[in-house]
Amino acid sequence: MSRVVVNAFSISLDGFGTGEPQTLDEPFGHAGERLHRWLFAGEPGGERVTTGVDGAMGASGWDGSVGAEIMGRRKFWPYAGEWTDEDWQGWWGDDPPFHTPVFVLTHHPRPSIEMAGGTTFHFVDAAPEEALRLAREAAGDKDVRIGGGPSTVRDFLAAGLVDVMHLVVVPIVLGRGESLWTGLEGVEAQFDVEAVSSPTSGVTHLTFTRKAA
Amino acid sequence: MSRVVVNAFSISLDGFGTGEPQTLDEPFGHAGERLHRWLFAGEPGGERVTTGVDGAMGASGWDGSVGAEIMGRRKFWPYAGEWTDEDWQGWWGDDPPFHTPVFVLTHHPRPSIEMAGGTTFHFVDAAPEEALRLAREAAGDKDVRIGGGPSTVRDFLAAGLVDVMHLVVVPIVLGRGESLWTGLEGVEAQFDVEAVSSPTSGVTHLTFTRKAA
Repeated sequence: MSRVVVNAFSISLDGFGTGEPQTLDEPFGHAGERLHRWLFAGEPGGERVTTGVDGAMGASGWDGSVGAEIMGRRKFWPYAGEWTDEDWQGWWGDDPPFHTPVFVLTHHPRPSIEMAGGTTFHFVDAAPEEALRLAREAAGDKDVRIGGGPSTVRDFLAAGLVDVMHLVVVPIVLGRGESLWTGLEGVEAQFDVEAVSSPTSGVTHLTFTRKAA
Repeated sequence: MSRVVVNAFSISLDGFGTGEPQTLDEPFGHAGERLHRWLFAGEPGGERVTTGVDGAMGASGWDGSVGAEIMGRRKFWPYAGEWTDEDWQGWWGDDPPFHTPVFVLTHHPRPSIEMAGGTTFHFVDAAPEEALRLAREAAGDKDVRIGGGPSTVRDFLAAGLVDVMHLVVVPIVLGRGESLWTGLEGVEAQFDVEAVSSPTSGVTHLTFTRKAA
């Protein structure tokens, strides 16, 4: 059955999923690459880790099981408000890694963009429930991924719409940025939680699985 | 050599070391016992866990290696301001588990209290460096423990005075309370960090060890 999943979403010890300010040069702000080094052999631009718990958890959900993705506007483009670059097609080059429809949540809809490899960006002004309806329709019986950023994951958690969430707690203190946890007091009560630390990278993989109703 | 240590200090995923409001009935506020269940077999009032990684990490520093303790006023008594109960002797009964001098940081000093078993509470109005000087003098060549609460650990971290810190990240979202991390952006740069999750309790033990100078 189609599930709503979050894959490999990295946060700091103080709960930030991105630093600040977000710009075209620094999509994660002052966090830089620090939240994601565990997946790239310790160095920006390094090879993607494919072995061990980091490799396995990093690959989870990237096996064709996801049929549509939902992301926030600022995961696609770092600035708020009207689009100031109509030619922008995201961070991911001509052949983005999604290979599915991607619904970008924005108050400023624009025409869809069809990329190589099966990725199409759709721009929708929709609340979580409505965005999920569109994404489920596109995904068929595959899963729907909530791709981030922090405020988008947060909104879907607050709406009780997430079935499985894989977080990666990175042992750094960012101090500022966008928190995943704001307004989510007690959210863990909806889930069973598994924790496993990586002896290689020092991060901890947390898997939240929705409790049976 | 005498080190400054933090033992088994529990925080939530969003970084809170205590909930709110703190009262005599609920010293951890709305967090209740949730931050410390990992150490008490899952239940308030349960037996202390003595086996496995939780048992071993929970016992670390409670083997006679600590010669003096420093704690914040609100770990000893939950309210701020003037003392309103001069008879209060802490939460721990006649024979507190410290068995050493304990320096309670307060802007309202009062006479020392000598308890059974070697614990003496001293009340001092001192900055971290001065409190540490007193505690080191009392500890001899043993370690000095920073016992909490969150703002006291934070102040010693900010002053660069902590050598070894064991945190326990509990997979709950408290939403409010006293954060360990406020003002500590980048503090991890001073430390090597080891992470190990407990398959029994689901918490993650983080050990911060100060990097060689």
